[in-house]
Amino acid sequence: MSIEYHPIGVVHSPFKDAEGTPIQPSRAQNVEGTVEVFAEYIDGLKDLEGFSHIILLGHLHQSKGYRLQVVPFLDTEHRGVFATRAPLRPNPIGLSIVKLCSIEKNRLQIEGIDFLDGTPILDIKPYVSEFDARAEARFGWLDLVRKQTQVADDRFKSSS
Amino acid sequence: MSIEYHPIGVVHSPFKDAEGTPIQPSRAQNVEGTVEVFAEYIDGLKDLEGFSHIILLGHLHQSKGYRLQVVPFLDTEHRGVFATRAPLRPNPIGLSIVKLCSIEKNRLQIEGIDFLDGTPILDIKPYVSEFDARAEARFGWLDLVRKQTQVADDRFKSSS
Repeated sequence: MSIEYHPIGVVHSPFKDAEGTPIQPSRAQNVEGTVEVFAEYIDGLKDLEGFSHIILLGHLHQSKGYRLQVVPFLDTEHRGVFATRAPLRPNPIGLSIVKLCSIEKNRLQIEGIDFLDGTPILDIKPYVSEFDARAEARFGWLDLVRKQTQVADDRFKSSS
Repeated sequence: MSIEYHPIGVVHSPFKDAEGTPIQPSRAQNVEGTVEVFAEYIDGLKDLEGFSHIILLGHLHQSKGYRLQVVPFLDTEHRGVFATRAPLRPNPIGLSIVKLCSIEKNRLQIEGIDFLDGTPILDIKPYVSEFDARAEARFGWLDLVRKQTQVADDRFKSSS
């Protein structure tokens, strides 16, 4: 089974290649960019500017091929790709929640973008915390990495 | 430009058609389902079970064609489709954050599913609140609808 999509727009961002690009929007809070929505889809943007944050689904166009296990940026061990946010996925769809600053015609000014320049946009959704936030979440290997980092930090403190 | 994806799995859920299906996982908290991941992708599931919640990206296969403006379930006015979570999108990709209960081989037991039975799964990502939650969000037309509902509730109370 094959599924075919067509981009509805494209990202303009300061990141020209993967090296140096923040690994998640939460770590790129002040990075400004633009989503240029193609003319035929402009009517779909009505009412979007009332939302402070939007979800961007992008086709990670520079991700060629995939690996089922990867060493994530935050870690030193191999993890299943579906337990990471690494770009080398079977279907390289990136998900970024960014701040929506303004909309002028077909151009969305955004903050906190971590997509590479030229990333085709597949979908834009409003971010709704009722749907999209989970307070009680547990974070697997990432919790472990954080705890280890925490321990290291504490040690450093007590020896100073 | 055309982008081609291939499903990595399929959802088994109690919802056989759109009517009666909850509009978001947060409103389907106790609904159990299964994601069957195709055999060739099993290695990608390593370490996933440490996460309490996962993000599912599904191809909304029963959504035929799209509209740029829709009347959302929660509303009575036409809104731009990108300002809603309605399924009739140019690229019908659904995003659901569900609770991950257990994994047995290639079968993920999940809770809070709002995808229809048979929905092809394009990607599975771990839910990480640092990346995916935004505390200070503002929710456009949805805020308005909620406030109006709030007023209506209060009136009802004071007249009782």
